[in-house]
Amino acid sequence: MSSITFSQRAQRITSSAIREILKITAQPDIISFGGGLPAPQGFPVQAMKAAFDRVLDSAPDTALQYGPTEGYLPLREWVARTVATPEAPVGPENVLIVSGSQQALDMLGKLFIDPGSTVVVEAPSYLGAIQSFSLYEPVYHTVATDEAGLIPEALDESARGARFIYVLPNFQNPTGCSLSLERRLALLTRCAQLGIPVVEDDPYGELRYAGAPQPSLFSLAPRTGATVLRLGTFSKVLAPGLRLGYIVAPAPVISKLAEIKQATDLHTAMVSQMAVYEAVRDGFLEQHLPVVRELYRQQCHFMLDAMAEHFPPSVRWTRPEGGMFIWVTLPEGMDASVLLADAIAQKVAFVPGAPFYAGDTAPANTLRLSFVTVPEDRIRRGIAILGTLIRAHLAAAPIPEAPLRVSGMPLPGAVPADAPRPAAH
Amino acid sequence: MSSITFSQRAQRITSSAIREILKITAQPDIISFGGGLPAPQGFPVQAMKAAFDRVLDSAPDTALQYGPTEGYLPLREWVARTVATPEAPVGPENVLIVSGSQQALDMLGKLFIDPGSTVVVEAPSYLGAIQSFSLYEPVYHTVATDEAGLIPEALDESARGARFIYVLPNFQNPTGCSLSLERRLALLTRCAQLGIPVVEDDPYGELRYAGAPQPSLFSLAPRTGATVLRLGTFSKVLAPGLRLGYIVAPAPVISKLAEIKQATDLHTAMVSQMAVYEAVRDGFLEQHLPVVRELYRQQCHFMLDAMAEHFPPSVRWTRPEGGMFIWVTLPEGMDASVLLADAIAQKVAFVPGAPFYAGDTAPANTLRLSFVTVPEDRIRRGIAILGTLIRAHLAAAPIPEAPLRVSGMPLPGAVPADAPRPAAH
Repeated sequence: MSSITFSQRAQRITSSAIREILKITAQPDIISFGGGLPAPQGFPVQAMKAAFDRVLDSAPDTALQYGPTEGYLPLREWVARTVATPEAPVGPENVLIVSGSQQALDMLGKLFIDPGSTVVVEAPSYLGAIQSFSLYEPVYHTVATDEAGLIPEALDESARGARFIYVLPNFQNPTGCSLSLERRLALLTRCAQLGIPVVEDDPYGELRYAGAPQPSLFSLAPRTGATVLRLGTFSKVLAPGLRLGYIVAPAPVISKLAEIKQATDLHTAMVSQMAVYEAVRDGFLEQHLPVVRELYRQQCHFMLDAMAEHFPPSVRWTRPEGGMFIWVTLPEGMDASVLLADAIAQKVAFVPGAPFYAGDTAPANTLRLSFVTVPEDRIRRGIAILGTLIRAHLAAAPIPEAPLRVSGMPLPGAVPADAPRPAAH
Repeated sequence: MSSITFSQRAQRITSSAIREILKITAQPDIISFGGGLPAPQGFPVQAMKAAFDRVLDSAPDTALQYGPTEGYLPLREWVARTVATPEAPVGPENVLIVSGSQQALDMLGKLFIDPGSTVVVEAPSYLGAIQSFSLYEPVYHTVATDEAGLIPEALDESARGARFIYVLPNFQNPTGCSLSLERRLALLTRCAQLGIPVVEDDPYGELRYAGAPQPSLFSLAPRTGATVLRLGTFSKVLAPGLRLGYIVAPAPVISKLAEIKQATDLHTAMVSQMAVYEAVRDGFLEQHLPVVRELYRQQCHFMLDAMAEHFPPSVRWTRPEGGMFIWVTLPEGMDASVLLADAIAQKVAFVPGAPFYAGDTAPANTLRLSFVTVPEDRIRRGIAILGTLIRAHLAAAPIPEAPLRVSGMPLPGAVPADAPRPAAH
């Protein structure tokens, strides 16, 4: 071992806080609100099994052989048809199939980031994206968010020259917030003015169970003059264990990404691509998605309901219209990582919010709760335990119960004092 | 598009010569000796179909869910048992499952290479590895090879400080050469003295159809004091469309690689890992591999036989004991890329040798032939056409028919003048 020298980037990388927490919480007696795992009740087991069978019966030599770097053509065509709108046409030459959208993030890092390049992310943003980009040594420029997500006005001239902005417009990870049509258009117009390409990551868009669907940033791009690369995944609508996602982008970008993907892993597994195509080609998702949405809506309701019952009024949280996450802002001065230690002692886990902030000073009083894989009774029990712990922390170091004054920029992802409060709160 | 700026590394990457040739040769009327595709007759279709069925019947929630970054534990344990020897023990903590060994190469680039780091490769070496490493901007140090593969004495003090040496000891891509036990031990001893870790890539090791099996560099490492990271893949023994491979390394290296893999693609598809484990767990490969080996042995024989018949005596070539490739050295002064243009006009394709040389001045007179996917009659027809073309090139610019004098270092991968010539040659 004495002769091994790691690269500078490898020396800097550290295991993610979430990964370490997930290891702790893998024990079955822990009520874990920490993970971002989809609910397995939503997995289309019979459909996937039939799809693998059909593929290995009808085209085994193609399914088991090396395939094109860009992906299985019928699946690329399916993605193109699904993403295209009259205003924003898409052909298969605009689609690259990747091994889950985490790989898309790594490849975008390779494609865009030189050491010292500026990358714009929301504060907070998806931790996995920050980890992927960081391997390529960017400088982060962060944009503030409020209860309605990214604040377009907060993206100003100081971001000019950034290689791209990374945005999750629907049910963002970690906040659960979604952008209104107005904010989408304002953001895109601003990005076009500043010359910043937009990376739209939309893993949860199909999982909307409340509110009105909003057009994708990709579909709005032509009318604003912005350039949008759209990332999608089959992880949340079918199953993450397949590791299948895609990038939709201008053809010259796809062509360069294909060169990168060839050096990265040659291509994504053919058998999975073909099985997913078999599963989705005849409209299966139209039957399947309502089942998943209803499951997630109920789970979200259970958690919001329990929070309203058990959390003290000085705690604030988002109310997602879809996806998997609720973002909690504890009273100022309270530290979510200290709360986590107490919670784990009582067999409840969550993820502190600080790791989701890139580069910035991160507020210590935020945390992320995931509601999708925990049964109702355990959600209620876990939230009650958290409520009791928060009250105990408050009693130990009293903080005014009145809503916090928000001065200047609103706290990231939290409901500001003057916003409508959750119904039963 | 005007606002898009690619990274320096992305601007430098270019599509591989092989990739472009494979596009040309995808037409069914072309006799292609260019690809490195395994023969589909060797794919265990029924076994894989049964394996996917069993997995999706017995453990769908695990197969379709996110999984551990390090890989599916039973498969890691299987790899550990398979690779371990009494002298070189291996546990699952020494195994990381990756999405094909091309991904292993990309991850090793991330792990080891800073811009300007020295990486040692054979001259010639696997083009896909050179492409992967190059994204991380190393400086290449090359080691000469002869008809018996890498020449250990050619690795001298000037390589000290290299981050690693990348070696394919069995049926190397592109030369088809294998290292003797003596050379293996000499190489490892030298690497230990110079403090250079060894990356052993062994995709073809199980495909030996002649000669005596040699111990892996990994198994020889303990007695020489060398550190060896071993790369393996299921692409050649089962099927490449699964995209499944592994890295065996000291536990601290695996641990760092797992952090890198998390940022790269979270983990390799669970359903494929579990299906492959189902397929191999009860010794299936022991029945299956002899079938594949016999198929490849015959294909190799057809090509060597046709070459002996049709190639002029001034052409030299390797005689592989396994794997998929034969390396041809044309008379000096002849250019394989000019020959390729003429060959494609007559519907025959191969890969010129120059792209397999990293950093170095590459000899123009080498080429790689793959024999595994072309039926016998087409092998014979294609080689006859090449033979006629080579003779025509010789006639146009006559070159002495006597064996070339080899001055100084032997030509890479070619049979030197004083070595035994192919039997019927």
